[in-house]
Amino acid sequence: MPDRFADTPQPPYVAAIFTSQLRDRTDGEYQATASALVRRIQEAPGFLGFEAASDPTGFEMVVAYFADESSLSAWKNDEKHVAAQRNGKERWYSHYRVRVARVEHSYSGPGGR
Amino acid sequence: MPDRFADTPQPPYVAAIFTSQLRDRTDGEYQATASALVRRIQEAPGFLGFEAASDPTGFEMVVAYFADESSLSAWKNDEKHVAAQRNGKERWYSHYRVRVARVEHSYSGPGGR
Repeated sequence: MPDRFADTPQPPYVAAIFTSQLRDRTDGEYQATASALVRRIQEAPGFLGFEAASDPTGFEMVVAYFADESSLSAWKNDEKHVAAQRNGKERWYSHYRVRVARVEHSYSGPGGR
Repeated sequence: MPDRFADTPQPPYVAAIFTSQLRDRTDGEYQATASALVRRIQEAPGFLGFEAASDPTGFEMVVAYFADESSLSAWKNDEKHVAAQRNGKERWYSHYRVRVARVEHSYSGPGGR
């Protein structure tokens, strides 16, 4: 099983909390775009990792971690990401929310990874 | 379908980002405890709402929103919640991470709710 946890550094850093309701989670173009963006975000300056879960109703949660607000802002304005946002708004999502937050402390358990 | 989105006020407020990997998502005691805590958190002072998704692998994400750090801290120290945290650490989770963050701005789309 791949590690689903983002290996973030000590805070502070920034989290973009994205919650969304898909109209149709089996939409092939949505799936292909999501996969392409997962590859693309790895190259984004300041990207620290992300965590994601989606349940069978099409409710999705993604939290993406960035070093600071400016690197998150650059990713928000990335050309391919902007195109995906437009499709998301117009076609894929019945609703979504984005919350930008500053992570101030963190802890984990059990296991030492 | 129940509304899965937390109806949070304008920022600032606090988010506790909880990501976890369950050992066995069908564990009845875990399920009962999670349901009881979902009811109990509604009564917690300063609680603003939560969003949650879990996928078939048992990877779960919960983001709970509170008015401020002190109300989040009180919930962290709630007696029933502390007992659940102990069981989570010892029995239910193979790993989890908690990140406490200050939400600084938010936006949503499409639809006006």
